[in-house]
Amino acid sequence: MRIGMLGTGVVGRTLEAKLTELGHDVKVGSRDPERSFAAAAAHGEIVFNATNGMASLDALGMAGAENLAGKVLVDVANALDGSAGFPPVLSVCNTDSLAEQIQRAFPEARVVKALNTMNADVMTNPALVPGDHNVFVAGDEDAAKAEVRSLLQAFGWPEARIMDLGALDAARGMEMYLPLWLRLFRAAGTPHVNIAVAREP
Amino acid sequence: MRIGMLGTGVVGRTLEAKLTELGHDVKVGSRDPERSFAAAAAHGEIVFNATNGMASLDALGMAGAENLAGKVLVDVANALDGSAGFPPVLSVCNTDSLAEQIQRAFPEARVVKALNTMNADVMTNPALVPGDHNVFVAGDEDAAKAEVRSLLQAFGWPEARIMDLGALDAARGMEMYLPLWLRLFRAAGTPHVNIAVAREP
Repeated sequence: MRIGMLGTGVVGRTLEAKLTELGHDVKVGSRDPERSFAAAAAHGEIVFNATNGMASLDALGMAGAENLAGKVLVDVANALDGSAGFPPVLSVCNTDSLAEQIQRAFPEARVVKALNTMNADVMTNPALVPGDHNVFVAGDEDAAKAEVRSLLQAFGWPEARIMDLGALDAARGMEMYLPLWLRLFRAAGTPHVNIAVAREP
Repeated sequence: MRIGMLGTGVVGRTLEAKLTELGHDVKVGSRDPERSFAAAAAHGEIVFNATNGMASLDALGMAGAENLAGKVLVDVANALDGSAGFPPVLSVCNTDSLAEQIQRAFPEARVVKALNTMNADVMTNPALVPGDHNVFVAGDEDAAKAEVRSLLQAFGWPEARIMDLGALDAARGMEMYLPLWLRLFRAAGTPHVNIAVAREP
């Protein structure tokens, strides 16, 4: 599959490496005109937003609405503002989310929030963390979520551990989990930490 | 131990029942002058804030700073505003938390955030949910957190599953987890759901 990877940070590079290893044809986009966001988005049948969440709307604008229209756009980003030190704060939360902002700005993209709740190593190698820990998906279109679930299964996520939280407004909870995740990271002493949802049988 | 329980909702009643069962002398306080917040707080060596988070500062004001001074104040509340329907929003988050607001308003209280991340039945009966799921504590004073840990162990929480997230500003993460918790509740189909933190060995 042709995949456009927006972002060249740790998350973008880790996802690119895994998707390439799985046989996909990945084109990476950045602000560098030599490998532009627009070229990467145009290339992809599926596009990943792995840019810094604070800059995602801008980056997606450079990618171009016409290059995102009709495509699954997997939003992996977190809008964390660390400019005032630890703990960083979210630049959008509570009554809105980055994923919803992206969907509103690019109404023809099929936005699915996923993978933003963990470190990149865990995204692409869930076996790094023991136990039945979970990955979440949220989005307004079931067919788009099904495409993302297939990719997650290829990453090594058993189907039963991919938890559909509903429509895209569930991304608020996924993004607002980040401040807790940062504390779990600190308390655990490793970024290779995740949560397993346990429920009454 | 003498315990003041502020709040007569499901959380307050469930905690009262469990603490009484454990042999503690619990006095419940509400807006009702017959069993006032002030009388309950004055009675307690430890005080629980189990009021609606939107009204907690007001309720604690009625309890009286002099009845909270020097005491461990376990803040179990969530400032969820459901007036605009589902999903409810937090009335404070991101750069502040209810627990920090309470600590600032009552600087002589020893505030510990705990138990707000789960349903009342699970708080007092963790065995209801299978697996090594966690309860979190946050607060600025280690001795106060140690008192709360003891109570949590009496509730049935194994020591290893009581996770100290650090100073009271970690309450931001614990409170901002609520929107995700609400989605997990919906997806699981039961409020008896909690998260287990898994980490790389």
